[in-house]
Amino acid sequence: MRFAKGHGTGNDFVILVDPADDQGLSPGLAARLCDRRTGIGADGVLRAVRTEMLAGGPGARPAGTGSETAAAPNGSGPGAQAGPAPEWFMDYRNSDGSTAEMCGNGIRVFARYLAGRGLAAGPAFTVATRSGPRQVRLDEDGNVTAEMGAVTMLGPGRAVLGGPGGQACEGLRVSVGNPHLACLMDAPLAGFDLTGPPLLDPAQFPAGGNVELVRVTGPGTAEMRVHERGSGETRSCGTGAVAAAAAAAMAAGQDHGSWHVSVPGGQLTVTLEPGAGWLSGPAVIVAEGELDDAWLAAAGAAAR
Amino acid sequence: MRFAKGHGTGNDFVILVDPADDQGLSPGLAARLCDRRTGIGADGVLRAVRTEMLAGGPGARPAGTGSETAAAPNGSGPGAQAGPAPEWFMDYRNSDGSTAEMCGNGIRVFARYLAGRGLAAGPAFTVATRSGPRQVRLDEDGNVTAEMGAVTMLGPGRAVLGGPGGQACEGLRVSVGNPHLACLMDAPLAGFDLTGPPLLDPAQFPAGGNVELVRVTGPGTAEMRVHERGSGETRSCGTGAVAAAAAAAMAAGQDHGSWHVSVPGGQLTVTLEPGAGWLSGPAVIVAEGELDDAWLAAAGAAAR
Repeated sequence: MRFAKGHGTGNDFVILVDPADDQGLSPGLAARLCDRRTGIGADGVLRAVRTEMLAGGPGARPAGTGSETAAAPNGSGPGAQAGPAPEWFMDYRNSDGSTAEMCGNGIRVFARYLAGRGLAAGPAFTVATRSGPRQVRLDEDGNVTAEMGAVTMLGPGRAVLGGPGGQACEGLRVSVGNPHLACLMDAPLAGFDLTGPPLLDPAQFPAGGNVELVRVTGPGTAEMRVHERGSGETRSCGTGAVAAAAAAAMAAGQDHGSWHVSVPGGQLTVTLEPGAGWLSGPAVIVAEGELDDAWLAAAGAAAR
Repeated sequence: MRFAKGHGTGNDFVILVDPADDQGLSPGLAARLCDRRTGIGADGVLRAVRTEMLAGGPGARPAGTGSETAAAPNGSGPGAQAGPAPEWFMDYRNSDGSTAEMCGNGIRVFARYLAGRGLAAGPAFTVATRSGPRQVRLDEDGNVTAEMGAVTMLGPGRAVLGGPGGQACEGLRVSVGNPHLACLMDAPLAGFDLTGPPLLDPAQFPAGGNVELVRVTGPGTAEMRVHERGSGETRSCGTGAVAAAAAAAMAAGQDHGSWHVSVPGGQLTVTLEPGAGWLSGPAVIVAEGELDDAWLAAAGAAAR
């Protein structure tokens, strides 16, 4: 089984190309691929399947992979020239093997890989995801831009950093498909404690949430640290950068425009439009190769 | 540049084959390869160089790579049939790019790779390392065994777990090329705090040391947790397993014999002889492939 490894601002992924949806990626095998000591190691798996070949026929297709997607691109935004219905479905798996709807840094790496290997006609195309079709574009400056879907401001919220009795932070609840609390800070971000999960109000975040600490550093520029639900502090989070930019824009009285967001893993740019966000930044392929047959047989057997 | 990734009981490595010593692995590039987010990710790099091709000629050769090695195997031990002088030098790099003398799990993975790819005539051969020549052997049970060199008991020592004011542990100081404190415990190992570095007496450990918590679980069997100097708690440590077995053997009044040592990453077997230790266990190749040219150019440029 061939694989590639890539990353976007330090969010890293194992990429598998499975055009006919017949290579048998189980949740257990996905988790073993992501193991950083005994597998390849990654935050998640990006499996590319041709939408027309998805196992189980049209009835089994996730949202955004069938004919309904042809009409979805709405003609607005940086990727409006994307064109026809998606050729590829991005089957995203978390590092524990579970499926997830979308991944902002993941889809940018996915697009880089497909275009770089001649599997998708660039520079702009549409990828089917479990959240619906998403436009992607390889930019002339070397970055990759992805459509992030609707950004919804949900009102004020609150987190406590550093465990019970720790530091309270006021923020804005933002949905970018998944739940965020973006807290605008006026002190250097290095001084805050993200070693443990920030405490959130269960009434506001019944399924938990990601917490962004955001500091505006100039007009249209901000820096961010992020604690991802279930993962701890990470070097980057695509939806978190969008939530951070949306909170910074709201504080500045804007409802559109671009924000350069500096994360520990690099630089991202978020473009906000009414009802939509776009994420731009580097997307890097590190290596390509072949999984060892004996490893694959043992991992597959253990995963069954 | 081609690479492979492999692991031994969860100690993982990037393997590079550089027969003519001309691929230019700098410390910076080694560190970038080991980065778990933006590189391949590993505990270290194992670079295979033909001893006759080492850059700089015979004067530049590290110990154990030249003609002096032909006489080194002493005719004793499990690998005594190893035969001629080493064909391959194992250039071991830590994950920060610095060189190191030897790595017990690393040399087992190195041997597995060379033999599996037909680069060394198995089942037993000798590898040149910065610690001198080391015999390796691919066993019929699928494990790989490596000569670990002299094991020296240095007397009693002491560590404090869990920071100042924490729990004191008495142990034995053991040199396996590098310094260890092996502490025999009579309580379940899960109950001890290895989240921070154990405090050692600088008079006993001027350069720090690795600390093993060891519990004898039966005749010739023990379990071990290890805190590695500079790395924190790890899933496995080859020299640590040898130190643990040596301490358990001394407590049992033995100076030779085999110990099965259970570590978080799997099962190792240590065979002790007067003056020498041998380490056996699984050695797995996960994948092989090619580093992306653009990644390599950027990593190489950044490392200069």
